[in-house]
Amino acid sequence: MVSSMEQRVAKAVTMTDVLAARRRIASHVLRSSLTPSMSLSSHTGHPILFKNEHQQLTGSFKLRGATNAVLSLSSEEQQRGVAAASTGNHGRALSHAALATGAKAIICMSSLVPTNKVEAIRALGAEARIVGKSQDDAQREVDRLVAEDGLIDIPPFDRAEIIAGQATLGLEIIEDAPELDAVLVPLSGGGLIAGVALAIKTVSPKTRIIGVSMERGAAMVACLAAGRPIEVDELETLADSLGGGIGLSNRYTFGMVRDLVDETILLTEREIAGAIVHAYVHEREVIEGAAAVGIGAILSGKFLAKGPTALVLSGRNIDMGVHAQLIAETHPALVGDA
Amino acid sequence: MVSSMEQRVAKAVTMTDVLAARRRIASHVLRSSLTPSMSLSSHTGHPILFKNEHQQLTGSFKLRGATNAVLSLSSEEQQRGVAAASTGNHGRALSHAALATGAKAIICMSSLVPTNKVEAIRALGAEARIVGKSQDDAQREVDRLVAEDGLIDIPPFDRAEIIAGQATLGLEIIEDAPELDAVLVPLSGGGLIAGVALAIKTVSPKTRIIGVSMERGAAMVACLAAGRPIEVDELETLADSLGGGIGLSNRYTFGMVRDLVDETILLTEREIAGAIVHAYVHEREVIEGAAAVGIGAILSGKFLAKGPTALVLSGRNIDMGVHAQLIAETHPALVGDA
Repeated sequence: MVSSMEQRVAKAVTMTDVLAARRRIASHVLRSSLTPSMSLSSHTGHPILFKNEHQQLTGSFKLRGATNAVLSLSSEEQQRGVAAASTGNHGRALSHAALATGAKAIICMSSLVPTNKVEAIRALGAEARIVGKSQDDAQREVDRLVAEDGLIDIPPFDRAEIIAGQATLGLEIIEDAPELDAVLVPLSGGGLIAGVALAIKTVSPKTRIIGVSMERGAAMVACLAAGRPIEVDELETLADSLGGGIGLSNRYTFGMVRDLVDETILLTEREIAGAIVHAYVHEREVIEGAAAVGIGAILSGKFLAKGPTALVLSGRNIDMGVHAQLIAETHPALVGDA
Repeated sequence: MVSSMEQRVAKAVTMTDVLAARRRIASHVLRSSLTPSMSLSSHTGHPILFKNEHQQLTGSFKLRGATNAVLSLSSEEQQRGVAAASTGNHGRALSHAALATGAKAIICMSSLVPTNKVEAIRALGAEARIVGKSQDDAQREVDRLVAEDGLIDIPPFDRAEIIAGQATLGLEIIEDAPELDAVLVPLSGGGLIAGVALAIKTVSPKTRIIGVSMERGAAMVACLAAGRPIEVDELETLADSLGGGIGLSNRYTFGMVRDLVDETILLTEREIAGAIVHAYVHEREVIEGAAAVGIGAILSGKFLAKGPTALVLSGRNIDMGVHAQLIAETHPALVGDA
């Protein structure tokens, strides 16, 4: 059973798909930089590198997979339009990708999604449809649009073209730093880490791939423990981009994460907040909670660097009121009277 | 007179030098991205692009010129060591460049330079020597080191290899956006804008080059008005990287700026502060005052975009206490109780 599953997973998305994705999306996405973190390299005594994907167009890595998925559709499908349920970053990316091809896009999301993310999608010209209080409610509306109106469902992570698109980020990391001991990747539905793990393990099998998520509602970690996709309650968290389930009929990411990821780490809300503040004060970077988990894993001591380590800073679409509040709360010395 | 001066200036630094500089520094510096500003494009109705040079290694464009200058020295000169007077960013860049070649570096700076910049230079392994209260005092110590100890003076802007190095940034801009109406460049001693203007005007003569500085102590603008290099008092400003004189015996930048720059704009401290805050709130970027002047020129209405416009975000080495204070002061709504 396991070996047949492994074979299915291994064949589902291949390095050929990743290289094709890179060629397809090259003129639509940024090749983000990989730069040393002075503060964390000094803290750990090992080279710590940031993959600066928060600087990607639309502010997150999601643009890679969404662009690859839309460009893989036939022109007839592109004309019918695309739909997705999204916590924001995928919806924004899909809107951007659709706009580039003239396709129609309807983005469905729950009422838990921060206002700034909803507005960003509308600014890109897509319809943002607010439905229910969970990813599942939003997904049901997508299913209806597909069944009744013939739109194409582009899910946020569980699709081969999405995974191959996100994998291009992993390929860039291992090209720029071939001798990595470990890569810390934000873990949610698993599209990012599955792609990154595929690309990096293909080139450098000994490099460890570590998934990092929040304690509050880490769906993939719960599913790995259960040995199968299960329902997991979505909870409010600073790492809101990591919320949502992996889908009971998960086809790709559950198997790939189970087979390719070496370890998972869970962070408290306080650890995530501290990581956001650290990125601002010591690296002059504004990043969202989901993107900060690699920094949090190091600062909390839950990950111990043993050699060169890359951290994927996955996005920066944080509500700036929340960000400014975190800065004001945790570093009063920075905002003194002087 | 003018035509012989133009000829001298034109021959002093050439596009051949710029292309050689690019080849020389390619593996030591980042090719920074040029990305659309959603907020300013929407504000002006024209495409506004950020040249994200604040994301450069060492946090500013200065790494380009310093690296080109050090790599242009003979190995014997590299062993004797380099010295410079610097408001911080050049010193940091030169330290980084010297470290890469194993050269000794002594960085002289005035007591007006923010503490975080001094510490950053020491962290790179160079000696940071604090002398007097002005760039001129610091420069006198450099002169002594050159005369008595045989070090090589690498000035922050008025040297052909420095200008050619900074010019590589202009070349990247015009490669990525060939149809620019204007480029807004922070203006201080003129090394950056001279190089950028040379590269861009060579490829696209119709693109306007606009220098932006602060009202408080804009030396180059005062010299242009006087028709020759003159002494200008250095004043405290949020754009501290733009402080300091251009040198009474200026050889390169005064003539190049006079001949190649189309217009200059001066900003108040309030306008610079507003631009720093705008970059944080609306673009999720932490930038220093000097880097924010292009944004300030647009938001103040002192520059009116008439077509695609690029802004050079030149650095991010702002004191984070100052940054957090600006955020807290000017956007109380962002740090409310909610």
